[in-house]
Amino acid sequence: MTGQEIRDMDLTYNLHSWSKQKGLNPVVITKAEGIYLWDSDGKRYMDMSSGQVNSNVGHGNKDIIEAIKEQADKYCFISPSLAVEPRAKLAKMVIDRMPDNMGKVFFTNGGADANENAIKMARMYTGRYKVMSRYRSYHGSTFGAGNLTGEPRRYPLEPGIPGFIKFFDPYVYREAISFASEEDATKFYIAKLREQIIYENPSTIAAIVMETITGSNGVIIPPKGYLEGVRKLCDEFGIMMICDEVMAGWCRTGKMFAFEHFNVKPDIVTFAKGITCGYIQLGGVAVSKKIAAYFDDHLLSCGLTYSGHPLACAAGVACLNYYDKARILDNVNAVGKVLGEEEEKLKAKHACVGDVRYIGLWSAIELVKDKNTKEPLVPYGKDEGGTMPGIVKSLMKKGFCTYSHENMLLVAPPLIITKEQLLEAMQILDDVLSEVDAAIGG
Amino acid sequence: MTGQEIRDMDLTYNLHSWSKQKGLNPVVITKAEGIYLWDSDGKRYMDMSSGQVNSNVGHGNKDIIEAIKEQADKYCFISPSLAVEPRAKLAKMVIDRMPDNMGKVFFTNGGADANENAIKMARMYTGRYKVMSRYRSYHGSTFGAGNLTGEPRRYPLEPGIPGFIKFFDPYVYREAISFASEEDATKFYIAKLREQIIYENPSTIAAIVMETITGSNGVIIPPKGYLEGVRKLCDEFGIMMICDEVMAGWCRTGKMFAFEHFNVKPDIVTFAKGITCGYIQLGGVAVSKKIAAYFDDHLLSCGLTYSGHPLACAAGVACLNYYDKARILDNVNAVGKVLGEEEEKLKAKHACVGDVRYIGLWSAIELVKDKNTKEPLVPYGKDEGGTMPGIVKSLMKKGFCTYSHENMLLVAPPLIITKEQLLEAMQILDDVLSEVDAAIGG
Repeated sequence: MTGQEIRDMDLTYNLHSWSKQKGLNPVVITKAEGIYLWDSDGKRYMDMSSGQVNSNVGHGNKDIIEAIKEQADKYCFISPSLAVEPRAKLAKMVIDRMPDNMGKVFFTNGGADANENAIKMARMYTGRYKVMSRYRSYHGSTFGAGNLTGEPRRYPLEPGIPGFIKFFDPYVYREAISFASEEDATKFYIAKLREQIIYENPSTIAAIVMETITGSNGVIIPPKGYLEGVRKLCDEFGIMMICDEVMAGWCRTGKMFAFEHFNVKPDIVTFAKGITCGYIQLGGVAVSKKIAAYFDDHLLSCGLTYSGHPLACAAGVACLNYYDKARILDNVNAVGKVLGEEEEKLKAKHACVGDVRYIGLWSAIELVKDKNTKEPLVPYGKDEGGTMPGIVKSLMKKGFCTYSHENMLLVAPPLIITKEQLLEAMQILDDVLSEVDAAIGG
Repeated sequence: MTGQEIRDMDLTYNLHSWSKQKGLNPVVITKAEGIYLWDSDGKRYMDMSSGQVNSNVGHGNKDIIEAIKEQADKYCFISPSLAVEPRAKLAKMVIDRMPDNMGKVFFTNGGADANENAIKMARMYTGRYKVMSRYRSYHGSTFGAGNLTGEPRRYPLEPGIPGFIKFFDPYVYREAISFASEEDATKFYIAKLREQIIYENPSTIAAIVMETITGSNGVIIPPKGYLEGVRKLCDEFGIMMICDEVMAGWCRTGKMFAFEHFNVKPDIVTFAKGITCGYIQLGGVAVSKKIAAYFDDHLLSCGLTYSGHPLACAAGVACLNYYDKARILDNVNAVGKVLGEEEEKLKAKHACVGDVRYIGLWSAIELVKDKNTKEPLVPYGKDEGGTMPGIVKSLMKKGFCTYSHENMLLVAPPLIITKEQLLEAMQILDDVLSEVDAAIGG
């Protein structure tokens, strides 16, 4: 099929996510290798968002592909009630990479159903029904995960599920008050959270669910001591601390899991994306030994046909082995340092760059009309002129493939990117940001 | 790894669905081919549940495996916002197999998230928030799908989502009144449903969601005219008719979709399982042209990282082609006829068989203590002595692998099963039912 035929067929028969369908004109991809994608005209793009922040090892990874082929010849699917080697092996490998308090894994198909099952388990374990999560978070768009979500992608799921409570995250850049230090910010946010827990009645709260580092809402990194503060509140009130590591996990931040940057051990960790880098869909919930032991004698009322899908687990085994073998964490830390430096330069240079936030190979560039007032380049939820999609399109034209969220650009390349490749990409970004400067008269 | 090593590792690190974990002793599967599974001791089992009623073409299908390998060499994952050939092709193939009112597809990872997205779309399209579904249904165990579910697997999701309303299904076998005919039963159930719609306020009801044929709760086939009656009510009140074909679809009943047995066209169809037979996880929502057109100009607020996963779609293309090439429907109808005849014989012969319900290669055998009183072999939700798992284990010992639900045994072999293989399996079932007869003194 030609590119045009694929595009026409796609638009005739497919519904595209988060879009009005009219006017869509998707690029047709016919090849992918390493950090690159190629369209049907042979044009090459750098995959600077790692797909949906999942293609950590890039495309065409031979180890994972060979593992998939080898497993496919044995068997692809076996019911989750039966035992198979790839599922057993991967579960062990996941727990081996977690803190020593963690016990068992329940596999799902992705991040949304990982979060769905995590809150179910927390509710069963605690016997409480409320779950607290944060504004400006994204945990998925099914009803449970979507009710955790603290931004507009939750709205179509309302009226909401009883007991799903929101609190504010530490988004220091846009807070109306300013803090003397990170520690001061933490003091404020933790005190506020404690106050809310008290007013919600702690004995009804099963879990606090957080993206360890907020992802699609703008790589918001918690201030020093914040996660430790949440951990203390959870301990004080018997609340399960659930860290959503769907985007943040599996080397993205320069550690295996983002919570390792902080001095905390969660009770439950949800993961997806980087466990297989999306070669086959896979997600999961890791729970503490204590929670796992509870389900020895209590019914685990969770299940899905494809829990621990053998072919997906085989891909996961190969993927986790590849992280070790290719010393991916070393590359994230080395090239991640360059990413941070380059983004600080962009911030210093461009009138339109209000803030840059980065950790490992994961970053967001927050665009503003005015650096001093911090007025966002587009109003929240109302980019009706299509300014941000326009910027994304300009980048795409120059071979830089990513996506935007509100007034923010995501820069999160595959973790195998070299310093040279990154610098090439940052030059494109630099050029496009100059165009934005010009547009705002900066 | 030895079988014992796999089992130990599995039990140490994995959480198994719908179970207390203590005492689990899963069979370790090391090989799968056609309708057969082999354990680590070399013992062979007939897969008489097709896994979770998803392995329609059995295991080791060369066409699907080759398609997976070939696609894996090209690319496995590409973001859903971009266009790729396997996704475009499969969407067309799905719509080509649907009634002429259907327009577009939104792909998911499985049946639960297909149902989640179906109700979201119905709510967006209608601007109404209530969804009606049935007791004794299973639609998945995430919060949205689980709130549709009308049996105990919903309980951990309570307090429920506002606006999720249940009505009773036509479970004629256990109705306290008896009907003169199927048509009479239909009259009763449709009148009752209409009454409930009126009392719920029709202008608030977005959708009626039904398994076209109730699956895991016991292959409950609607009486003549029932689905047509629901369709009429939907038309009268502007309610979307959503048929959940996750189990029933893709040849299982002897038609491509179960609703083809009845004279109805749904507005929305959800599917999963048989679209890839689980070789790679895939599900989806097909919507009518009218609904699809609505989203031309309105935001489709649905999305997931792995929507239309290219490797899964490539498996789907090969799978749908295989149904045609191998004339699977012909086999379902021919061997399905034998299945029905054999089950009628079992019912006539065994004191413990209260009812048999079958369509295509899909059936449930309802076990009772007493044929006349219809007292179930185990009380609802309270099989504390483990009677049904005991029967399943007896079958397993004799090489017949399936599962039970409440007082029912599922018989749903891969659609490639031959008459001879089926008769061999039914002999095993016959023997085990004789043991059950003896146990109840029948």
